[in-house]
Amino acid sequence: MENHEEPLSLVLFSGTDDKLSAAAVLAVGAAAMGRPVHLFLQYWALDAFRADRILKDHGLSPEAGAAGAEAVSRHGGEHWSEILRQVKEIGEIDIQACALSMDMFQIQQSDLDPIVNGVTGVASFMSTATGAVVFI
Amino acid sequence: MENHEEPLSLVLFSGTDDKLSAAAVLAVGAAAMGRPVHLFLQYWALDAFRADRILKDHGLSPEAGAAGAEAVSRHGGEHWSEILRQVKEIGEIDIQACALSMDMFQIQQSDLDPIVNGVTGVASFMSTATGAVVFI
Amino acid sequence: MENHEEPLSLVLFSGTDDKLSAAAVLAVGAAAMGRPVHLFLQYWALDAFRADRILKDHGLSPEAGAAGAEAVSRHGGEHWSEILRQVKEIGEIDIQACALSMDMFQIQQSDLDPIVNGVTGVASFMSTATGAVVFI
Repeated sequence: MENHEEPLSLVLFSGTDDKLSAAAVLAVGAAAMGRPVHLFLQYWALDAFRADRILKDHGLSPEAGAAGAEAVSRHGGEHWSEILRQVKEIGEIDIQACALSMDMFQIQQSDLDPIVNGVTGVASFMSTATGAVVFI
Repeated sequence: MENHEEPLSLVLFSGTDDKLSAAAVLAVGAAAMGRPVHLFLQYWALDAFRADRILKDHGLSPEAGAAGAEAVSRHGGEHWSEILRQVKEIGEIDIQACALSMDMFQIQQSDLDPIVNGVTGVASFMSTATGAVVFI
Repeated sequence: MENHEEPLSLVLFSGTDDKLSAAAVLAVGAAAMGRPVHLFLQYWALDAFRADRILKDHGLSPEAGAAGAEAVSRHGGEHWSEILRQVKEIGEIDIQACALSMDMFQIQQSDLDPIVNGVTGVASFMSTATGAVVFI
């Protein structure tokens, strides 16, 4: 069953490091299989892509608890933003900030990490989001 | 790449105002591109669609924090239920409550806001959910 | 509109009982319509599938609150792991643990409930995830 050219669209809403890491892992897996990846950054995920805080501690989901936090920290591994940078090298990935959320935070593209390709509206995102759409 | 008739199915699980707003924005974007939109309301999202509380404060995701809550409140904008009402005018949208969750809350369709079209089972929802399925 | 053979891929990330129950319900609905179901277990969901804790109390989403917790507990119904076992009988379902998350928790397949079919990498999962991909 071939889906090498079936795109994967990820709407990133949550800004905690566990969900952003899970998103980056799905993106790298899809890109490794030759699938184009579209990221659309909303709300708390957009906030986490600001240039001045992308590498800061964004916390974990409340359910992680102390044992979960310890497992994540012991495991280490690459930062999710590093994984996304690598996806740009091995495959086709486009990262767009949601115009409405930019407005909400009163920020400009220059406030975001350069890994973000641009700012777009939701209708434009939806017109390219053929196939799977994943909300994280 | 045309996907004007590719439906978008949204399973709404979370009942916080930030996630419901994100869902309404995705729905309006999809409808604006001519995509039929199916909503299936479960758990805490269903609870938020009760007639007597749809306009009440449903809180935000825990990660929003004080700064996030302030950005949301300053931004204002239309209520998610208002946006969904507009989707009904510009496009094709069907909003169904999950029968199992109705049972859990011991409520009837008359307890829900009239924006909800009906109550259905998950198998029936799944039979119409061709294409993208988004869980929010 | 026929989608009887359109697979449904669920990435389970969250390990709370409300989200795992919602996932099991979507899986049973899809399987009842003849759709093959792929589950991929990451992070806190993987942790919840450990043999020694699958039946324990995994809590609810923070937004459930006291009234929500009471509704869930009053409603009762089958445990999500029981529902998934039934899906195995009525339909086609494959449950894979994410190799990276196994590594993070430093566990082996023998630590997981036998309902889990195996351990796999994300690229392999993505190569079978044609059609809808749902992140829960």
